[in-house]
Amino acid sequence: MRAVSIVGIGQVPVEKSSERSLAELGASVVRSAMEDAGVDRLDALFAGNMLSDELQGQKHIAALIADEAGLYGVEALQVRAAMASGAAALRLAYLAVASGEATLAVAVGAEKMSEGVAEPALSKALDVQREVRDGATMISRNADLMRMYFDRYKVPEDAFVNFPVIAHGNAVTNPYALFQKAVTPRKVRRSRLVHPPLRLMDCSPICDGAAAVILAPSEEARAFSDHPVRMLGSSVVTDRFRVEDRKDPLWSDASHVSALKAFRQANVNRMDVDFFEVHDAFSIMACLQLEAAGFAEPGEGWRLADEKRIRLRGDIPITTMGGLKARGHPIGATGIYQTCEIVLQLTERAGKNQVRNARIGMMQSVGGAATTILTHIFGV
Amino acid sequence: MRAVSIVGIGQVPVEKSSERSLAELGASVVRSAMEDAGVDRLDALFAGNMLSDELQGQKHIAALIADEAGLYGVEALQVRAAMASGAAALRLAYLAVASGEATLAVAVGAEKMSEGVAEPALSKALDVQREVRDGATMISRNADLMRMYFDRYKVPEDAFVNFPVIAHGNAVTNPYALFQKAVTPRKVRRSRLVHPPLRLMDCSPICDGAAAVILAPSEEARAFSDHPVRMLGSSVVTDRFRVEDRKDPLWSDASHVSALKAFRQANVNRMDVDFFEVHDAFSIMACLQLEAAGFAEPGEGWRLADEKRIRLRGDIPITTMGGLKARGHPIGATGIYQTCEIVLQLTERAGKNQVRNARIGMMQSVGGAATTILTHIFGV
Repeated sequence: MRAVSIVGIGQVPVEKSSERSLAELGASVVRSAMEDAGVDRLDALFAGNMLSDELQGQKHIAALIADEAGLYGVEALQVRAAMASGAAALRLAYLAVASGEATLAVAVGAEKMSEGVAEPALSKALDVQREVRDGATMISRNADLMRMYFDRYKVPEDAFVNFPVIAHGNAVTNPYALFQKAVTPRKVRRSRLVHPPLRLMDCSPICDGAAAVILAPSEEARAFSDHPVRMLGSSVVTDRFRVEDRKDPLWSDASHVSALKAFRQANVNRMDVDFFEVHDAFSIMACLQLEAAGFAEPGEGWRLADEKRIRLRGDIPITTMGGLKARGHPIGATGIYQTCEIVLQLTERAGKNQVRNARIGMMQSVGGAATTILTHIFGV
Repeated sequence: MRAVSIVGIGQVPVEKSSERSLAELGASVVRSAMEDAGVDRLDALFAGNMLSDELQGQKHIAALIADEAGLYGVEALQVRAAMASGAAALRLAYLAVASGEATLAVAVGAEKMSEGVAEPALSKALDVQREVRDGATMISRNADLMRMYFDRYKVPEDAFVNFPVIAHGNAVTNPYALFQKAVTPRKVRRSRLVHPPLRLMDCSPICDGAAAVILAPSEEARAFSDHPVRMLGSSVVTDRFRVEDRKDPLWSDASHVSALKAFRQANVNRMDVDFFEVHDAFSIMACLQLEAAGFAEPGEGWRLADEKRIRLRGDIPITTMGGLKARGHPIGATGIYQTCEIVLQLTERAGKNQVRNARIGMMQSVGGAATTILTHIFGV
């Protein structure tokens, strides 16, 4: 198995509603990433998208993006793991290059949530027969977890307030972020109760976006980029599908095991991680991930936000470019946006969002209610 | 890159309507394949499915099948290439084992088309903005191609009749086939004109089914199976997305290039292929594939059926266990059913359907209107 590096990135600004079609969005970032890597051909394209079946009426999106980007002839496949579909595309592009089947592969994520009503489609990440039919949605599941956390750990009512405050603070200087403005703790505390105890400011927004990264064998990476980033670890772990089938709903075993696997592959430990792009679709998810991945004890994850240790200058910065909360969470694109951001951080191109001495970056992506977890570790 | 072999297979009989849920169908064949390989754990599961978003309201099917099979903890991802999704799952399981990331990977295909109306969902394999909005469906696209073939080559009106006759003949002795009965040329000629000139007997049926295959490194294959089958070639090639954007709608460049790539990988040529599992979703597709893959000149593919050279005792047997037409075409499962059949042929376990001296088997899978083509070549 050969080592793999990222040699090109492409992003479009996340928007509430893009005028471009899903295929155009995907193709535009593929072309940007190809330009960044200085290549005019690719061997393979792996597309991450979750919602196009229903929102666009389109079920063959990888080949459509390839055609739109002028890449027909290429291997093009779509890969899915619900909300972790972007990271799943990265995983498969990694396998294609690591195996030797592809020299240049692009992982592209694209999602256009502005057409139609996304929430019912998102809920199909749960078990339709045993959860959706009982009225569960992604929002209600996360509200349940938040309430359970409050009840068990007796934390203050505003324990999670600093997760969105810090994410929004970082998004201010990310030109690709949907919300480039700060929010105050007071604004978070007073935001609408969407699904108690979940407030609007605990939830990531519905939006459109696309991002792409190009992978090449590490030994050839310098031919394409002056600042390649190595993929040191890549793992996918599933948990029991339904939250209620797990021993402890507040403990994500998949997140824990996936992180350990990726640490082992990368030959690093938690202390080596300079920043951690979490899947903060909801503040409670960011908190539980920090605990499961080993950055806080169970029941203590919220303190990292409260003590502001997750800020850019903290000991474990998260959501360094705004996170899902403020950069935006265009589902199938999210994992690839995070990858682009990690590349910018590790190559000291993150501008005002730069994490100092960033050498190792970690990303975790979550499909469903912590059912599928992908961990990726990158380094320079 | 290490060589990969198939060490276990599992199938359920294709049914018009299964009483089992999609996840149960998928899990049952995964367990059968594990039993066949004598293993109680797997590293990775790749699921092929096209229609569950709409027909089952389920968007996280790989993890759901993993959980149902008792395999939580495993890597589980869904992969799609429209109607070629089963073969796409095989491709990714191959990459996972070839790269060294997995020792044991399962490719599982499952589809349950009996819930809801499948045809509008199938049409989403086309370009919704430029084809579906103009009224195109998969059936109308194939009727167009058939008419074009008639017009250009001036073939007899019943040129394609022997494709379904031979497929049905082979299905009679396949216990997993949906239609285990023969049809006469007369019955085909008199079948209902579904979408002229396409008749009912030119079309594969709507049905439910699931199949799975387990992959392992070839050097360890004997530990799991007394009769492993080697994967000699695996390629994915896309064409221009829309038929009308291609130079010649009757020439599938993706099929041609994909076959050549797989031949090169496998170090074989067309003459070495002992049988060819084509994607006979429609008779015209089988004909065009035989031409594009090099088994007949353009305009001559129908003659292979007419002269019965595609029968079990012919020089290039196709649809040896009934094909999509008579075994059935439960979309995401189809490529895996074909793989199981090829394994049975190459290990001389095909019973009355046995192709004599079968050493090299080839399979082509088609997504959309020949937009995505996967070719796999297997050998013993």
